[in-house]
Amino acid sequence: MVSFEMTGRDGLARLGRLYTPHGSATTPALLPVVHPGIQTIPPSEMRRLFGAEIVITNSYIIRGRVEFRERALREGLGGLIGWDGPVMTDSGTFQSYMYGEVEVSQPEILDFQRRIGSDLCTMLDIFSPPETPEPEAASRLSENSRRAGQASELFHGGGGTSQGARGKGQMAGGEEQGLVLAVQGGIFPNLRERSAADIAGLGCAVQAIGGVVPLMESYRFAELVDVVMAAKRALHPARPVHLFGAGHPMMFSLAALMGCDLLDSSSYAKYAKDGRMMFSWGTRHLDELSHLPCGCPVCASHDPEGLRSLPDPERVRKLAEHNLHASFSELRAVRQAIAESRLWELVEERCRGHPALLDALHALGGHAAQLERFAPASRTGAFFYKGPESSFRPEVLRWERLVRERYTMPDSEVMVCLEEAPKPYSRHYASLVRRIQERWDARFVVTSFFGPVPLELDGMYPVAQSLVPSRLDPESAARVSRAMKRFSHDLRSQFSLVWEGERSFEALGAVVPEGRGVVSDWEMLRVRATAELQFGRDAAAALLEGKLELVLSPNTGRVRNVLAGGEHVLSLRARDGLFTLRMPGARRLVAAVGPPRLRVVVDDDAAGFAAAGKNVFSRFVKECDPEIRPMEEVVVVDGSDRPVACGRALMVRSEMLAFTRGMAVRVREGSGGPPGEG
Amino acid sequence: MVSFEMTGRDGLARLGRLYTPHGSATTPALLPVVHPGIQTIPPSEMRRLFGAEIVITNSYIIRGRVEFRERALREGLGGLIGWDGPVMTDSGTFQSYMYGEVEVSQPEILDFQRRIGSDLCTMLDIFSPPETPEPEAASRLSENSRRAGQASELFHGGGGTSQGARGKGQMAGGEEQGLVLAVQGGIFPNLRERSAADIAGLGCAVQAIGGVVPLMESYRFAELVDVVMAAKRALHPARPVHLFGAGHPMMFSLAALMGCDLLDSSSYAKYAKDGRMMFSWGTRHLDELSHLPCGCPVCASHDPEGLRSLPDPERVRKLAEHNLHASFSELRAVRQAIAESRLWELVEERCRGHPALLDALHALGGHAAQLERFAPASRTGAFFYKGPESSFRPEVLRWERLVRERYTMPDSEVMVCLEEAPKPYSRHYASLVRRIQERWDARFVVTSFFGPVPLELDGMYPVAQSLVPSRLDPESAARVSRAMKRFSHDLRSQFSLVWEGERSFEALGAVVPEGRGVVSDWEMLRVRATAELQFGRDAAAALLEGKLELVLSPNTGRVRNVLAGGEHVLSLRARDGLFTLRMPGARRLVAAVGPPRLRVVVDDDAAGFAAAGKNVFSRFVKECDPEIRPMEEVVVVDGSDRPVACGRALMVRSEMLAFTRGMAVRVREGSGGPPGEG
Repeated sequence: MVSFEMTGRDGLARLGRLYTPHGSATTPALLPVVHPGIQTIPPSEMRRLFGAEIVITNSYIIRGRVEFRERALREGLGGLIGWDGPVMTDSGTFQSYMYGEVEVSQPEILDFQRRIGSDLCTMLDIFSPPETPEPEAASRLSENSRRAGQASELFHGGGGTSQGARGKGQMAGGEEQGLVLAVQGGIFPNLRERSAADIAGLGCAVQAIGGVVPLMESYRFAELVDVVMAAKRALHPARPVHLFGAGHPMMFSLAALMGCDLLDSSSYAKYAKDGRMMFSWGTRHLDELSHLPCGCPVCASHDPEGLRSLPDPERVRKLAEHNLHASFSELRAVRQAIAESRLWELVEERCRGHPALLDALHALGGHAAQLERFAPASRTGAFFYKGPESSFRPEVLRWERLVRERYTMPDSEVMVCLEEAPKPYSRHYASLVRRIQERWDARFVVTSFFGPVPLELDGMYPVAQSLVPSRLDPESAARVSRAMKRFSHDLRSQFSLVWEGERSFEALGAVVPEGRGVVSDWEMLRVRATAELQFGRDAAAALLEGKLELVLSPNTGRVRNVLAGGEHVLSLRARDGLFTLRMPGARRLVAAVGPPRLRVVVDDDAAGFAAAGKNVFSRFVKECDPEIRPMEEVVVVDGSDRPVACGRALMVRSEMLAFTRGMAVRVREGSGGPPGEG
Repeated sequence: MVSFEMTGRDGLARLGRLYTPHGSATTPALLPVVHPGIQTIPPSEMRRLFGAEIVITNSYIIRGRVEFRERALREGLGGLIGWDGPVMTDSGTFQSYMYGEVEVSQPEILDFQRRIGSDLCTMLDIFSPPETPEPEAASRLSENSRRAGQASELFHGGGGTSQGARGKGQMAGGEEQGLVLAVQGGIFPNLRERSAADIAGLGCAVQAIGGVVPLMESYRFAELVDVVMAAKRALHPARPVHLFGAGHPMMFSLAALMGCDLLDSSSYAKYAKDGRMMFSWGTRHLDELSHLPCGCPVCASHDPEGLRSLPDPERVRKLAEHNLHASFSELRAVRQAIAESRLWELVEERCRGHPALLDALHALGGHAAQLERFAPASRTGAFFYKGPESSFRPEVLRWERLVRERYTMPDSEVMVCLEEAPKPYSRHYASLVRRIQERWDARFVVTSFFGPVPLELDGMYPVAQSLVPSRLDPESAARVSRAMKRFSHDLRSQFSLVWEGERSFEALGAVVPEGRGVVSDWEMLRVRATAELQFGRDAAAALLEGKLELVLSPNTGRVRNVLAGGEHVLSLRARDGLFTLRMPGARRLVAAVGPPRLRVVVDDDAAGFAAAGKNVFSRFVKECDPEIRPMEEVVVVDGSDRPVACGRALMVRSEMLAFTRGMAVRVREGSGGPPGEG
């Protein structure tokens, strides 16, 4: 069977591994299109030169020419194209769009794909080009869903044979071939979502998003975003998603950010034939270049004149090599960005390549809430501001919501608003804060790019780990100003003052009587506020009940462990200023807040493993708090709501329930065993 | 003699060729720092692998160690480091900054550099680190200028010998070694400008900007911009500028945009030793990478694990190779961007790499007028919007000024403001315009990213060739709105109306009586308005005096040639919608507007060549209109103000008067010969 495993993620984007009868491939993957006859670069060299692990070819073309067909049936696809790894086949849908109806039925073309040993066989879906009016797109989509049902029935209901011509020896582990169903629906998000729901309800290995090539060719990237995001709302969360025809490296990062796992490219060869070179920032004709603006092996060893003077087939080959170097290096950049949780930043960089991509970034802003549900709660590196569009990022949306919903407003007499400053704010403002608190009962909030940052929260991700320019763009500044107003408004009866240097002492003195003069215990405030933002107000209260002791790191002097009533409930991670749960804390949480909050429920077999400190795999998960975000702290409980472990969630609820492989919770500590890694 | 030629340009940035006794190098150039003892990558391989043409090494270190010194004196620099191309030497200034005073005098170290055969010998300048207060920086700068005077005296006044140890055979053409003088002045732009003026008044081959490494190391790029731009205001325009220590590819484009021609890098090796990899978008430690986000030969043939497992010296070597691939490919990207006049766009892309670079971009915005004086009047490709900072670009500043100063406001009854639309605007709005003009005496202006675009100017660069997102950022929108208000205000008594679809017909009918109903001759309006924007109002009137005939292209139907009173005065270039001058037009201009306007004055020998259609080289230019921008049309006149040719200026006045080599005007047509290319 074809299967898919998520090994890493950044929001909807995922690093993964796709297993097929002929081997596996890392995702996001780029599938170079291989023509059975004309091979600009033979597939075997694609592996050697670029690290390609899976390719795609067209079963309709193979079936249509007698010499291809017979050889494919005789030697299998691998023999035909000279490749022993995974192959996906397309079905002729695009040909039917380009040249009118195709002369093959879906059962015929699916059967053919299976017989030639394709690892991923594609249904004959029904294309609605962008100009299709909504009623027609809707009726075509219904017909497409019927066909998808037929394909799934043929595949999983016993029709055809999974024994391809490649022979048993190559069918590693006897795994079966996979079916690719395609989402259609034209440019209408509601139809795309309906189509995706239809597909998700059927058995298949890969979910493709079809009918988008004309959008990409005419740079209608904003509409592309709307249809892909609509499809992602309804697609099966555990199956890989293929974006048909997204072959320009300029848009790989955008596709990945929306949760597309597979991309294919015939452009590398088509562009090369036209003399055009692809770059992650755009395209240039070789004739336009006097210097090669690229470091790939082709560009590092040639100059433009040298390339121009090569004989035709050699030049086309070199340009195709360049195009694949540009594509595969961008693919690696995307994978690394996912690993670092900086994919959004890469997209913000790449979208400078064309104003239509900037429009797409704005369209993504319209899906901020959908994206935020999958965005990680923390990451290793810093948050880099890239431009006004950085305001759309999940971290921004989330910070504002958490402060609004979870931060406990202080009952101090005055709230002092401080301006953005070098981080950490609490160090920068330490002496000012002391001077003010010696005279007034005051608390403090900093006007940051993320909106209001209560001073005691200045060590938390993403605030402490962010890099923003000293001059903010007016759009972000306006957003921050609105958020600060809302924050001040929520204070209600409190007096609040924007600090404007020494003269503000007088201003404050004129209005607020000098008071108790109590200097806050900032570490204690920090612990309480951080716990509230991470777990919610009620949960934090339970976590921190009893006499609190803060154990400091002997090296840094910062809080390392939190003991409440003698129990070690929390540890503080220096990297991102967030708490990690310990078992006594986990027990307090389960006792204090009802299910499903903060819980991952596992079956009783898995509960034993978790209690021994082993990680929790998704196939054992029975339920999960729907509010959990990746990288958040969770309590693992058994079917009777007994806490058996605590750790970090790697998936959200829908994924835990859908994935049959992959880790759902990285367990830090089990109730009955030695602490695991974490 | 060391000399420098400009072969291409984009604003202050230039493509050039630096000639030295040991060969020449293309600029912008990156000079890898070569240590005489420890060679991570030998210089000969730098040429082979990366195309390096010139390197830099440190004469102070060579002089300080007996084995280096004796070998250098015996075999020359080339023998010591294994390199037969151009070498620049540094003098120990940076060592004096790092480790206190150096134990060598300027005459000693300069003499040593000459004796070992350095092509570019650097003065022993006096470093003012950023924390130096202004008075001290000023006094150190005065001392630095005295030293520069001494160095120039030693070099050009007869001291020392230019016969290096490399022997006559290698001193190609007997050319002499060059002197490098350095601008100092700390972080104070006024001091930097004064220092630059002092240096510019002395004889030297290269002008270096020193004392900026600490700024770059602490990401104070905005201050770097201010000091470099200040220096550029006063430096000699015909000498190459070296930015000391700018070795990270992240900032190459920014350095080039400010007019820096030479960069050096020791970082490639230092970073490699630390396990760090440089990219045009930032830096990563090898240990942070699970995928190599780069397409260079090293990254295309390794994975991170493979690199990590290499033994120490091999890994350092591979990382250094990667760092140089990243650097030299970025250098090629910079060169190509200059060739395409899209360097500003590359800078806008690269400045996303770090918020401090975005601050630098804003700082550049503060020098918009200085940059505009050198910006080309046209280019081959389109203007791509990259973000709010695109508003700082010279094209934007210039368009607004030209429309304000040169566009003749129509005397129609109503000015209709149309919103941004697909280009060309005149085609998009053709039927609406006809319907309005059939009822009212109206003219039209489009609200574009560049500000007001009178409809008849919609074919001109940069308007027609621009790509902007459909949704403009608020900062740019506010600028456009201000410009539109100013435009409407300048109309004074005119009635103006923002068109809001069909209902605007009623609004117009209610206020403006239906009038003459004359549909404009748009081609005629276009010719007149374009000529006014290019040459000024009075000049355009003279150009177009007499009966006008427009000769259309039989293929496109667009205007190709303009005949006035039977004379072929102008041709229209389809690519950018701008006129090129013909000789009858050139004669009309000279007769109508006084000197120096629109003129390049050449000596009488050169006048003969120009009259025969030959290009004009800078060394023959005696005067030039100070308002001329690169790529603008000019008339070449002799000493008696007789027009001898017309063509396109490649330099501005200060450059024409300063450069002793290179083309100043590409002549299209001479008064007495057959038309040249153009």
